[in-house]
Amino acid sequence: MPFIYNRSVYFRDTDAAGVVYFAQVLVICHEAYEASLAAFGINLRTFFQNSELAIPITHASVDFLRPIYCGDRLLVYLTPQLASETEFQVKYALFVDQQDKPVSQALTRHVCIHPTQRKRQPLSEEMQQWCQKCQG
Amino acid sequence: MPFIYNRSVYFRDTDAAGVVYFAQVLVICHEAYEASLAAFGINLRTFFQNSELAIPITHASVDFLRPIYCGDRLLVYLTPQLASETEFQVKYALFVDQQDKPVSQALTRHVCIHPTQRKRQPLSEEMQQWCQKCQG
Amino acid sequence: MPFIYNRSVYFRDTDAAGVVYFAQVLVICHEAYEASLAAFGINLRTFFQNSELAIPITHASVDFLRPIYCGDRLLVYLTPQLASETEFQVKYALFVDQQDKPVSQALTRHVCIHPTQRKRQPLSEEMQQWCQKCQG
Amino acid sequence: MPFIYNRSVYFRDTDAAGVVYFAQVLVICHEAYEASLAAFGINLRTFFQNSELAIPITHASVDFLRPIYCGDRLLVYLTPQLASETEFQVKYALFVDQQDKPVSQALTRHVCIHPTQRKRQPLSEEMQQWCQKCQG
Repeated sequence: MPFIYNRSVYFRDTDAAGVVYFAQVLVICHEAYEASLAAFGINLRTFFQNSELAIPITHASVDFLRPIYCGDRLLVYLTPQLASETEFQVKYALFVDQQDKPVSQALTRHVCIHPTQRKRQPLSEEMQQWCQKCQG
Repeated sequence: MPFIYNRSVYFRDTDAAGVVYFAQVLVICHEAYEASLAAFGINLRTFFQNSELAIPITHASVDFLRPIYCGDRLLVYLTPQLASETEFQVKYALFVDQQDKPVSQALTRHVCIHPTQRKRQPLSEEMQQWCQKCQG
Repeated sequence: MPFIYNRSVYFRDTDAAGVVYFAQVLVICHEAYEASLAAFGINLRTFFQNSELAIPITHASVDFLRPIYCGDRLLVYLTPQLASETEFQVKYALFVDQQDKPVSQALTRHVCIHPTQRKRQPLSEEMQQWCQKCQG
Repeated sequence: MPFIYNRSVYFRDTDAAGVVYFAQVLVICHEAYEASLAAFGINLRTFFQNSELAIPITHASVDFLRPIYCGDRLLVYLTPQLASETEFQVKYALFVDQQDKPVSQALTRHVCIHPTQRKRQPLSEEMQQWCQKCQG
């Protein structure tokens, strides 16, 4: 079962064209990723400032299928997938509440490295479990 | 009774100093304002793109009392106050869950105008009621 | 000759991991796109609020090759490419001043539509010329 | 002589009301502050991640006098003022190119502390000189 993140669309998400600014969709996807980690029991403050291990995003892509408006209720379906012992990807499908078709779809790729040496290293046991649990 | 808005602190809210970026506190306050309007039954999409009536912010101020970290659970207490038939202000007190003292306090002033002529006009009945209800 | 956009990296671009937040790279790419349109003589205010014609982004992707830090001087090389009479894409290569290898690469796809009916329509003569000029 | 920062208004600065989002004005002011520090020879990356000394903002206020639109050319006049050996404030006046009256005015207060103990400590010689130079 994918993780589902609920999120209202706020004024700050929009631009002068009256809809959500394109890059803001990836911000919302990352919020969903954080919500999913927190729900799994991971401390976000130490996760993002770990001096031994970092999991930066190496690639992101996003398709914009329908405009999203201020006040819309978004549901973000998040599905991670282990690619190797050092790498995973996360897929996101964004729906506006009570609509059948997604408004957007996105993907992020994450690689585990040492934050200063920037060499690959294995994902923690915990992150592998998070991937497996959300994957169902 | 003031309106209370719950909000996690996300990675995007932070900066390279490891805490929430100063101006982002006002973004979070505005989200609380929007959540309060939506809870009162106001349609945010038409509210912010009304061609007959706009309520821009004319002033904002904010005090930063304690650092706020990624993953913190914020509670924003919002209290509006009618200043005249064309103007109101909103006070915000931000707390991190389970802490006694606020981490931040803020204020926004809003004036009702015609969006193109930019002349003052009276607040709608609905907005006056929203002010009175949240003020308790 | 591609268009080159110069941009310092500001504190707001960064996150608690001490580097530029991933989605912010796309924000910087869009700034380069806007700078390129403005340099060609296009009025950005009317461009983004045109009630007859809109050119929303339908797809974006971005690769993160090296971390980018606060204070870095970025050079964004922008190259548009006409895909059809209703569609173009823009490629971005981001360099930190005085470094050989790109820190990031990105792509955006843009489709010309009617903003309310959301049906495809041909790009303006002006936009086709902008594509051709920047393509060299 | 105050420091002057030039900045175009980008699409991301705006919201669905078609003008610059209120809190974004403070983001632009902070960019002006950073540009002024960099012009004085301060390394921004080490400045904002110094483990011995931090200068967080303790207060900010901003007045919105006129709407600011996408594509506008902003000039930000920045004037710092030493308040004590541990504290300074910065005033900002924002003008749209070729207009007489400011579109916005803002103020930030900064206090020098130890980043972990969070106790006040004197500003560096360098920061005091920056204050004095920009104050003229």
